Amino acid sequence: MVNGKMNMETPTNVTIKGILGTLMASVDEKKKRLISLGMGDPTAYSCFTTNTVVQDSVVQTLESQKFNGYSPTVGLLQTRTAIAEYLSLNLPYKLLEDDVYITAGCTQAIEVAISILARPNANILVPKPGFPIYELCAAFRNVEIRRFDLLPDKGWEVNLEAVDALTDQNTVAIVIINPGNPCGNVYSYQHLKKIAETAKKHKILVIADEVYGHLAFGDNPFVPMGVFGSMVPVLTLGSLSKRWLVPGWRLGWFVTTDPNGIFKNAKTVERIKKYFDICGGPATFIQAAVPRILKDTKKAFFTSTLRTLKQTCDICFENINEIPCFTCPQKPQGAMAVMVKLNISLLKDISDDIDFCFKLAKEESVILLPGVTVGLKNWVRITFAAEPSSLEEAVDRIKCFYQRHSHQQNV
Amino acid sequence: MVNGKMNMETPTNVTIKGILGTLMASVDEKKKRLISLGMGDPTAYSCFTTNTVVQDSVVQTLESQKFNGYSPTVGLLQTRTAIAEYLSLNLPYKLLEDDVYITAGCTQAIEVAISILARPNANILVPKPGFPIYELCAAFRNVEIRRFDLLPDKGWEVNLEAVDALTDQNTVAIVIINPGNPCGNVYSYQHLKKIAETAKKHKILVIADEVYGHLAFGDNPFVPMGVFGSMVPVLTLGSLSKRWLVPGWRLGWFVTTDPNGIFKNAKTVERIKKYFDICGGPATFIQAAVPRILKDTKKAFFTSTLRTLKQTCDICFENINEIPCFTCPQKPQGAMAVMVKLNISLLKDISDDIDFCFKLAKEESVILLPGVTVGLKNWVRITFAAEPSSLEEAVDRIKCFYQRHSHQQNV
Repeated sequence: MVNGKMNMETPTNVTIKGILGTLMASVDEKKKRLISLGMGDPTAYSCFTTNTVVQDSVVQTLESQKFNGYSPTVGLLQTRTAIAEYLSLNLPYKLLEDDVYITAGCTQAIEVAISILARPNANILVPKPGFPIYELCAAFRNVEIRRFDLLPDKGWEVNLEAVDALTDQNTVAIVIINPGNPCGNVYSYQHLKKIAETAKKHKILVIADEVYGHLAFGDNPFVPMGVFGSMVPVLTLGSLSKRWLVPGWRLGWFVTTDPNGIFKNAKTVERIKKYFDICGGPATFIQAAVPRILKDTKKAFFTSTLRTLKQTCDICFENINEIPCFTCPQKPQGAMAVMVKLNISLLKDISDDIDFCFKLAKEESVILLPGVTVGLKNWVRITFAAEPSSLEEAVDRIKCFYQRHSHQQNV
Repeated sequence: MVNGKMNMETPTNVTIKGILGTLMASVDEKKKRLISLGMGDPTAYSCFTTNTVVQDSVVQTLESQKFNGYSPTVGLLQTRTAIAEYLSLNLPYKLLEDDVYITAGCTQAIEVAISILARPNANILVPKPGFPIYELCAAFRNVEIRRFDLLPDKGWEVNLEAVDALTDQNTVAIVIINPGNPCGNVYSYQHLKKIAETAKKHKILVIADEVYGHLAFGDNPFVPMGVFGSMVPVLTLGSLSKRWLVPGWRLGWFVTTDPNGIFKNAKTVERIKKYFDICGGPATFIQAAVPRILKDTKKAFFTSTLRTLKQTCDICFENINEIPCFTCPQKPQGAMAVMVKLNISLLKDISDDIDFCFKLAKEESVILLPGVTVGLKNWVRITFAAEPSSLEEAVDRIKCFYQRHSHQQNV
């Protein structure tokens, strides 16, 4: 049978998009306006709109008709150079254009990182809670995933003892997401240094997912992992998506942040370059706009985004703590989401986080992400990158939902 | 050592871009203006410029600011619907939006096809000469490649006896590139039907690479492989790249052209969808422009491109046959390139096709692609999608090159 040829094992991972799609389908928009706090896409809200110069730069390169052809598979030279310069601003050494590979969003950067590290019996350490694309990608590439805990009561820092215990001779890398999704953590210099020391001790690489780079509005400033690149080789993944509020443009980067040149041996470079030959990268004219985007985006735009994020984070954090079944161990210091613990025992007819989110979607048209999709059962992830009024209304609706479903109401 | 962790096997495949890069580096542009007939990117020449409506459609969706956010990973619904309708025009049945997945160019469509079919011991049949991305991708996914000959004296038709001999119980698919790269073949309805019958007999799928779809200017009209979709399930791969002359936009598709729904069982659909979750697709605003692009591109634009391609093909074919060391067994009927056999014995100091192309690049600043990169040693691939004047000048320079290097000159 031909369809026998299609019967292959499929990773069993739950995906965020998969579950959000099902949640959306159970919303009745005629009853109540949909408020989605499920996805990390701020562009749904008008307070998170990109800057004019960002858009104009792309219109300009498109209309020039000079960039309708193929780019080199590793990316346009001027784009690689501009990103190398941009990232070097926050590093104690200078990256070169050859360190930078252009990807179709940070998603493809993740896929490239996992794929080039894949080899028989390899394992990769990922945070729990974490971002499920890593696990799905590893499943497709036959790479084993080992999860280390982030510690909710210590600002979601990495449990380094767990890392020590999980690492063996087949461990190739540790994934660090900072600023963090789903937890909103922004790690201190000292903690990042400890992570680098741990990676060095175990002779493993660091995959530094910095897609939320610079989106820090709390006490800790954003420190790129590459600062410790001379201690341990770092693969830095990033994109325009979050800081420039254009996630749909799919313009990301995969960067060997590695002043000692571990990634610079001929064989490794050849492997990476060949891998890019099988990737469809981002559109050439979007790549061509990057130098101007990086040069001309005003500081005021970034400041304004951070101010709004801090404001929406405050609204979310303060109001959420008024809901008895929610506990938020850590106020976010960055990124766009917060993890909230669900006290199921206070609810009379809710079995778990998935049940909670489905009933909430159906009854209140509010979408939250069940924590199980990011590795924590009976938690929820709430995206606070939303219009303040929507956030407030969502919280009100969740309060009503709680009232209806709490044991107390029965008394 | 950390760099021990990076020492993995790298596919040994030569890549087109790799060899073209090295060839380019040996050109001295101060001596002679570069004429590149090496790559399949027509946009380098002003006679192959996309239509205004195509560009305007993208400016419009970009400036609307409605498409800066994420699209579903399988693609925007309106884009999938538009492509389903577009492809259905040439099929005896109707494709639905769920049959269509949007990819970052045809390159990513190839990568998805190979990756979702990968499983232990699987093998895939590919044409020789062929397109090296298939082999490189298969190498990264641990899929075995088996090459069947295309027959130069029979219009580069598939050697179906070779297909019979190569197929076993682990064969999952056969790749058909039509209109053909690198050969310029356009297969007849009858030949495609025989291919479908052969695939059906062996219970394997057809991967129909139709990135050059509709670019047929010879006797045979373009017939999509999906016409035989009820006989054998077909994965149709395509893109805007060639027909709309925007290869750098990276807008492609992966389509299950399969009216019997072999690909429609829940497990297969889940596998494909999950695979798309780890792919960075094309920009949302480019996707959003596709419905208007497909609707509003005038027939006159396509006719004009075909007329120019036919003209440049004629110039190339006629002039090339005047060069004694070149033999062209088959005049192209479509696509953008032709395969030419090199008679090395007529040349006194050229060892093979690679040596020929390197010396030609160095001495005459003309780039041709060594045949060995597409599987045929001592052939060259010549892209004729170029300005007529450039083609004529290139042929003149190759004639001079031949004069200098032929045995005759010694006499």
